[in-house]
Amino acid sequence: MRVYDIILKKRNGEQLSREEIRRLILGYARDEIPDYQMAAWAMAVYFQGMSFQEVAWLTEAMVESGETVDLSSIAGIKVDKHSTGGVGDTTTLVLAPLVAAAGVPVAKMSGRGLGHTGGTLDKLESFPGFQVSLSKEKFVETVNKYKLAVIGQTARLAPADGKLYALRDVTATVDSIPLIASSIMSKKIAAGADALVLDVKVGNGAFMKDIGSAQLLAETMVDIGERMGRRTVAVLSAMDRPLGRAVGNALEVKEAIAVLRGGGPEDLRRLCLELGSRMLVLAGKSADLAAAWKLLEGLLASGQALEKLRQMVAAQGGDASLVDAPEKLPRARFRREVAAVAEGWVRRVDTAGIGNAALILGAGRAKKGDTIDLSVGLEVLAKPGDKVDRGQPLAIVHGNNEELVSQACAAVLQCYEIGAPGESPLPLVCGTAGRL
Amino acid sequence: MRVYDIILKKRNGEQLSREEIRRLILGYARDEIPDYQMAAWAMAVYFQGMSFQEVAWLTEAMVESGETVDLSSIAGIKVDKHSTGGVGDTTTLVLAPLVAAAGVPVAKMSGRGLGHTGGTLDKLESFPGFQVSLSKEKFVETVNKYKLAVIGQTARLAPADGKLYALRDVTATVDSIPLIASSIMSKKIAAGADALVLDVKVGNGAFMKDIGSAQLLAETMVDIGERMGRRTVAVLSAMDRPLGRAVGNALEVKEAIAVLRGGGPEDLRRLCLELGSRMLVLAGKSADLAAAWKLLEGLLASGQALEKLRQMVAAQGGDASLVDAPEKLPRARFRREVAAVAEGWVRRVDTAGIGNAALILGAGRAKKGDTIDLSVGLEVLAKPGDKVDRGQPLAIVHGNNEELVSQACAAVLQCYEIGAPGESPLPLVCGTAGRL
Repeated sequence: MRVYDIILKKRNGEQLSREEIRRLILGYARDEIPDYQMAAWAMAVYFQGMSFQEVAWLTEAMVESGETVDLSSIAGIKVDKHSTGGVGDTTTLVLAPLVAAAGVPVAKMSGRGLGHTGGTLDKLESFPGFQVSLSKEKFVETVNKYKLAVIGQTARLAPADGKLYALRDVTATVDSIPLIASSIMSKKIAAGADALVLDVKVGNGAFMKDIGSAQLLAETMVDIGERMGRRTVAVLSAMDRPLGRAVGNALEVKEAIAVLRGGGPEDLRRLCLELGSRMLVLAGKSADLAAAWKLLEGLLASGQALEKLRQMVAAQGGDASLVDAPEKLPRARFRREVAAVAEGWVRRVDTAGIGNAALILGAGRAKKGDTIDLSVGLEVLAKPGDKVDRGQPLAIVHGNNEELVSQACAAVLQCYEIGAPGESPLPLVCGTAGRL
Repeated sequence: MRVYDIILKKRNGEQLSREEIRRLILGYARDEIPDYQMAAWAMAVYFQGMSFQEVAWLTEAMVESGETVDLSSIAGIKVDKHSTGGVGDTTTLVLAPLVAAAGVPVAKMSGRGLGHTGGTLDKLESFPGFQVSLSKEKFVETVNKYKLAVIGQTARLAPADGKLYALRDVTATVDSIPLIASSIMSKKIAAGADALVLDVKVGNGAFMKDIGSAQLLAETMVDIGERMGRRTVAVLSAMDRPLGRAVGNALEVKEAIAVLRGGGPEDLRRLCLELGSRMLVLAGKSADLAAAWKLLEGLLASGQALEKLRQMVAAQGGDASLVDAPEKLPRARFRREVAAVAEGWVRRVDTAGIGNAALILGAGRAKKGDTIDLSVGLEVLAKPGDKVDRGQPLAIVHGNNEELVSQACAAVLQCYEIGAPGESPLPLVCGTAGRL
């Protein structure tokens, strides 16, 4: 079985066998196959696609290329959640304590990654003293006791995916649905969850710009999960505007606390209930979505979800008093409003542009190793469909450097298209995939 | 201008600019661009193609990547001929002396290359003492005096093409017409000819299997030549069966001598007249094809073409007496007939398979550095459309090793499909391209 023939077969639109895919992926992970052959193969996949069966085999091989996390010492059905990435996506900070409060074990391994803001680990470090590196024993003990712990990823999960992703990134082969789906699913499956709820973002702030491609990505990932014995469902959610108001690290923690207190932005709260209720059903905690939804609403209203956050922060060495005094979380020196320059309707928000404004302020990492400023970011006040008056604030920029604040304000202003009423924004939930 | 963006642009089906193509090709030749990015780009070209303009720019950049041969010290219009490669293609051995006999300067730089048989250099070494390495001065002097010399290629012509070809060879991106056309034309243009006659082979023994793709390749190459200021025409010729009878080195030399004597296989003679008459018109020696054809027929009949071969062999140190005693050319120890196992019509000949049988015998190089046996090869007696009786010889195998002769005989037999009358074979000339 020559690598050349595997490339040729895919180039000619044929389906690869399980053995051919294993040979390619494991050989690549072991540095036996050169980058140039993988690059040619990835471009062939971009044009010819892969069947659902091939994508599942690809995922399986990527999982096999590295370690897999064994969560069997944690009691109960472990349900993980994954979002395909957007701007102001504060769902994990809400969902982890909320679902744990319902009794579902949340054993979360997170990365730091690149993006407009930091990852979940960075955000949690807004609580002074919060420890993200627990021993395996302490991690299991914490989850078994509190149903919740979030730690840094230590195992070498799906290294073939990491290597292939870096190659795709420089060869214009990132935006291929089979490759995206297998990349996400290989890491999730290696991380040891029994079931998965996927949040596939759609719109100009997301990787998938339209509902059709998002639906295909969702169906592909659900199919992979099911073929690999993991109950998997997906929700398609709107990312043609930022979710909630906060974009930034401490700002998002503050917003998550607001939701856990029973308030917070309505869209963020609702999406957390959509995702959380699915997690409860997959975990066997609720019989159906309606029952799960009601249970979760109760946990928000009663303060039990907020209490779970306090427990987690304290258990991992953080200052849990800030949960009740969020004004003490890191705050930027400057706040500046971005005012509408004309009266009219918000026709469109360049959501990725809003994310870039947060990056300008220092909220995220443009490259590995960049330091993050936890205090900076944006509050997004006006969204598509809103009527605004001239001078009305569209957003508030939080920064520690006046020059960068000015740059970010100018960038945010550029993101708003204001005029006659435009097309309707996407519904918050644009679709679902998978059996529930 | 990032390489990434050039790949992306081509992947998305857009046309690249002259500067983008230069950046890519010259950067690659200088090892500034990694193989994996070129491989992704080549695969994108495979799927998206290139416009005629882009292919010309690509060719131009590949020429620019290396040296170009200056033939200006040779008097007259230098016309080169190129064949895209087939089985038993003896045209160069006939055309070089034939066209030189008509007064057209033939300053041929040849390689050895890989294939079923050796290259033109190998074949000429069938004449004991023949020297393929002349100094630049001696080369020019010989061509000016005799109108003919054939030497080994020394200049580093189009190195970007060499590097890209090696990469395409291992990434399943060889069979892309824009890449094939620019590869051939870059070397021909760098070799310094003023005009070009291309022989594009069509059929199961050629790279182009059907007339449509051969026509597109021919039109693409003609367009490149014309855009780069070289008069270029192409002939599409049949390669659904070997050309002539001989497949092998000394065997082909013997066959070429037969044609230069006014005899030889009719198809080989005719194709040489088709190509040669075009060379004469492009060189300004004849007003039209009919006049050129008549002139060339006269040179074959009068013995002047054969005399030119004697002159060349002698001028380059070879034993010219063998031109008149071809039985003294290298001969194999064993000759074995491959007999038809049934009566019927030859429906199909697997022409590439015939070439491989010659390779089994040692007539060609499977990899660089392999030694060649000049004496071995095949005579192909039965061709598609022929009626054969049971036991009638289809071919004669010439070899020096009984085991290999047996293997080659079995391989040849497998190449023949005999039964009820089949489809008509291709006409010898299946089409043309370019203005004449």
